[in-house]
Amino acid sequence: MAAVPVTAEIARRAAVLAWNDLPEDLVERTKQCLLDWFAVTVPGAQEELTDILIREALEDGAKGQASLVGRTEKVLPSTATLINGAASHALDYDDVNFSMGGHPTVTVVPALLALGEQIQASGRLFIESFVAGYETSGRVGRLVSPSHYQKGFHVTGTVGSFSATAAAGRMLGLSDKQLAVAFGIAATQAAGLKSNFGTMCKPLHAGTASEHGLRAARLAAKGFTARGDSLECDQGFASSQSDHLNTDAALGEPPQGWHLRNNLFKYHAACYLTHAPIECAKEIRLKSNFPPERVRKILLRIDAGADKVCNIPNPTTGLEAKFSLRQTVAMALNGVDTAALDSYSDAVTQEPRMKALRDKVSIEFKPNWEHSLAEMAIQLDDGTTIEASHDSGIPWADVKKQRNAIETKFESLVSPVLGAAGTRRLADAIERIDSMSDVGELARASAKS
Amino acid sequence: MAAVPVTAEIARRAAVLAWNDLPEDLVERTKQCLLDWFAVTVPGAQEELTDILIREALEDGAKGQASLVGRTEKVLPSTATLINGAASHALDYDDVNFSMGGHPTVTVVPALLALGEQIQASGRLFIESFVAGYETSGRVGRLVSPSHYQKGFHVTGTVGSFSATAAAGRMLGLSDKQLAVAFGIAATQAAGLKSNFGTMCKPLHAGTASEHGLRAARLAAKGFTARGDSLECDQGFASSQSDHLNTDAALGEPPQGWHLRNNLFKYHAACYLTHAPIECAKEIRLKSNFPPERVRKILLRIDAGADKVCNIPNPTTGLEAKFSLRQTVAMALNGVDTAALDSYSDAVTQEPRMKALRDKVSIEFKPNWEHSLAEMAIQLDDGTTIEASHDSGIPWADVKKQRNAIETKFESLVSPVLGAAGTRRLADAIERIDSMSDVGELARASAKS
Repeated sequence: MAAVPVTAEIARRAAVLAWNDLPEDLVERTKQCLLDWFAVTVPGAQEELTDILIREALEDGAKGQASLVGRTEKVLPSTATLINGAASHALDYDDVNFSMGGHPTVTVVPALLALGEQIQASGRLFIESFVAGYETSGRVGRLVSPSHYQKGFHVTGTVGSFSATAAAGRMLGLSDKQLAVAFGIAATQAAGLKSNFGTMCKPLHAGTASEHGLRAARLAAKGFTARGDSLECDQGFASSQSDHLNTDAALGEPPQGWHLRNNLFKYHAACYLTHAPIECAKEIRLKSNFPPERVRKILLRIDAGADKVCNIPNPTTGLEAKFSLRQTVAMALNGVDTAALDSYSDAVTQEPRMKALRDKVSIEFKPNWEHSLAEMAIQLDDGTTIEASHDSGIPWADVKKQRNAIETKFESLVSPVLGAAGTRRLADAIERIDSMSDVGELARASAKS
Repeated sequence: MAAVPVTAEIARRAAVLAWNDLPEDLVERTKQCLLDWFAVTVPGAQEELTDILIREALEDGAKGQASLVGRTEKVLPSTATLINGAASHALDYDDVNFSMGGHPTVTVVPALLALGEQIQASGRLFIESFVAGYETSGRVGRLVSPSHYQKGFHVTGTVGSFSATAAAGRMLGLSDKQLAVAFGIAATQAAGLKSNFGTMCKPLHAGTASEHGLRAARLAAKGFTARGDSLECDQGFASSQSDHLNTDAALGEPPQGWHLRNNLFKYHAACYLTHAPIECAKEIRLKSNFPPERVRKILLRIDAGADKVCNIPNPTTGLEAKFSLRQTVAMALNGVDTAALDSYSDAVTQEPRMKALRDKVSIEFKPNWEHSLAEMAIQLDDGTTIEASHDSGIPWADVKKQRNAIETKFESLVSPVLGAAGTRRLADAIERIDSMSDVGELARASAKS
C-alpha cells in the first residue's frame, strides 16, 4: 500500500475547488478551451463515426432531451455524452496537455454539457467543474506516466475517465469521499488501446471516457460502492496499468501553478506528434522556397515514442495520413494547408508528389527525447542542407494572440455547418458563460436548428 | 506481430457456429446455464446495487421495451443488458469456467436476452449464440492467462467483453471479418479491476462487459472501424494487459471438446476459491462431528492466487464474508448453510463463535497450485488431527444429477420473488427454449408481473 492517499487527495482538490479560487485568466482559458472544443466538435459531428453512433443510439431507443453538438437529434444525457465526446475527438484536432499525456477537454466537456443541460447548471458551476476536471487530468496523467502510455493505453480513454468523473462529480456537488469512490467506479471502467489509433475507436475513447465519468459520478452520488484508493492500491489502476506511481509529481504544482495554463491547442489537423515536424518542414520551405522535386533526402529526428503513435509509413486513407510522420511532412513541403480538414483525404495519400517525398524521409527515433521536439535536415540535389528545429510543447505566452488564433479556427470550422448566424450565436453563448444561469442555453446553441 | 491471426480465428469459429454443429448435450448444458443464471439473477435483482442502477437509468430517461429479470421496470435494450448483467453477478453465485478464469454466463446471457427480445430472435439462434459466446470466453481466457488476472484484471469484465461480443455478433449474423472488428471495439472498452472485489463494482463488471459486447457487435454491424487483430497485435489487448499470448492453448481443444462441458456451477454463495476449503471443512465436520470449541488450530493449504482474491481476514459485512477464506471456513465448521443467501449477513461476521474460529485458521499459500484445490488439517484440543482435501474444479460427470442440483437451487432462489406460478412459468420457458420462435417470451417470463 502506498503511504500517500493520492486518490483521496486528488478527489479532495477537485471537490473543494470554488469560483473564488480561480485566477481571472483561468476563466478566459476555459472559454478558449470551449471555443476550441466546439470548433472541432461541430465538424466532427458530421463525420461517419458520429452518424453510426447516432443510428446505434436511436435503434436502441435513446431519444431524449439532451442536445447533440452540430446535429438536430436529441438523445439521453448519457448518450449525448458518448456521442459528443466521440465527435469532438473525431478530427484529432482538439487540445492536448503534456502532463496528462493526452487530450484533456474532450472527456471533460461532453459530460458537463449533457449533465449541465439536464440539471440546469449555472455557467459558473460549469467553469468550476471544468477546471476541477482539467486539473485532475494533469494530476492522474503525471501519476502513471510515462509507462502507462508506453504499455499501450490511450491516456485520453483511461486518465480521461478520471477527469470526466471529477468534472461531473464537482457539478453534482459530491463530497471528497464520494468523489474518491466515484474514482473507484471510473478506475474499473477506464479503457482504451493505442493500437486502435487510425480507426474510429480512437475518437470513441473520448466518448466512452466521458460516459464513464458521468456514470461514475452519478452512481457514487446514489451510494454505489467502490474502493476509495483505486489509483494507488495494490492491483488498482496504477499497479495494473503502469510501472509508475509518481505521487509527488501528481500532487506537485505544474508550471505556472495550473495545468490549464499549459494547455496546447492544435493548429494542424493531425496527430499532435506530427506538429513539430510539420513546423520544421514549413519553416524550411518558407525560408528556402525550393521546388519539392529538388529534395534529395529528408532526415527527421524525433522522440522514439512517436514510432508507435504516428508512424504509418504508407497511409492510404485521410485518417491514416493524420498518423503518418512521412505523409504530413510531405504535405507541408508540398505547400498543402495542414490546418484545413479537407487536406487529409484518401486521394492526397496517393498523389505521386506525396509518395515521392514520403520515400525520401528517413526517421531517427531518439530514446527519451521531449515528445514535442523535432529536428529536420533537408538535403537538396546540389548538396545544400537546410536545417530547422521546433518544440510544439511550449504554450503560447500571449493569451490574446492565442484567442485570435482559436477564433479563426472556430469561425472556419463552425460556419460551414451552423452558418454565419449560428456561428455567432454559439460564440456569443461561450463568451457569456460566466454569467449564464442555465448552460442548457449553450448546449442548445451548439445544435443544428 | 504474432504469426497466428488468433483474433481472426476466434472470430471465425464464433461466426460460423451453427445448430447442426452442436452435440445434443450442449443444448442441455445451455439450459442448465440458463436455469442457473436466472436462479441467481432473480434474487440479485432485489439487491441494492440493482436498485441504484435502475434509479440511475430512469433518471437518465432510459425507459424502454426490454425486460429486467425479477423486476417490473422496462428499459432500453442496452440498459437492460447492463442491469441484468450486474444483477446476475451480484450474489457471486453464478457459474465459473477455469479456462476463462472467470464467470462465463453473466456476460453472455444479458446481451442475448435484451437483443433477442428486441429483434425477436428464435430460441435456436439464442442457443447457437450462447455457445459461440461461451466458447469464446474459454479461448480468450486461455490466451492471456494466468498473468492477465495476476496483474489485477477481473477476467469477467475483460475477457467477458469478448464473449459477449461473440454472442451478440453471432445473433446479429456478423461475418467473421465483422466479428473480428467487433472484437477490436470490445478490446478497447474491456476493463475491470480485481481490487474492487468486495464492492458493487465487481458485479458491475459483468454488466459493463455485456454492455460492451452488445455495443461492439452492433457498431461493427453498422461499419464502425477497429483493428481486426486486437488480441495479438503489438500494444493490443494481450500485449498491454498480459505477459502471455498462449495462441496454441487458445485455439486448442478443451477437455471433452467444448469449454461448455467444463462449466462449474456454484453450490455455495461465496467466491469460488472458498468452495474447496468449505468442502474440506464440511467433510471434516460431518465425519468427526466435534463441537467447534474443541478446535485448537486449523491449517488451510491453498493456491497462492487466493491471497489476492478472497483473503479478507476480518470481514465486517456479508459481502466481505463471501471473500474471506477464514470466515467461510468458520461458517462451515459451525454448521451454517453456506448455500443459503441469507447466511452471509453483516451479523454473522460479528458472532463470537465465528471470530473464535477465524482466529484459529492459518493459511499456507502454495505457489502454482491448482486454483480449485484445498487441503485442510484440523487439530483438536486433545491433539487429534483430522484431514481432508477437495478439488472444486472438476465438473460433475453426471449431467442429470447436476440438473437436479440446479433445479433445487433455481426453485429456492426464484420462488421467493416470482412466486410458485411465476417460477414454474420461467422454468417452463427455459425448458422450451429450443423450440421457441421468439425469446422475448423468455425475457418477459423472467420479469416480475
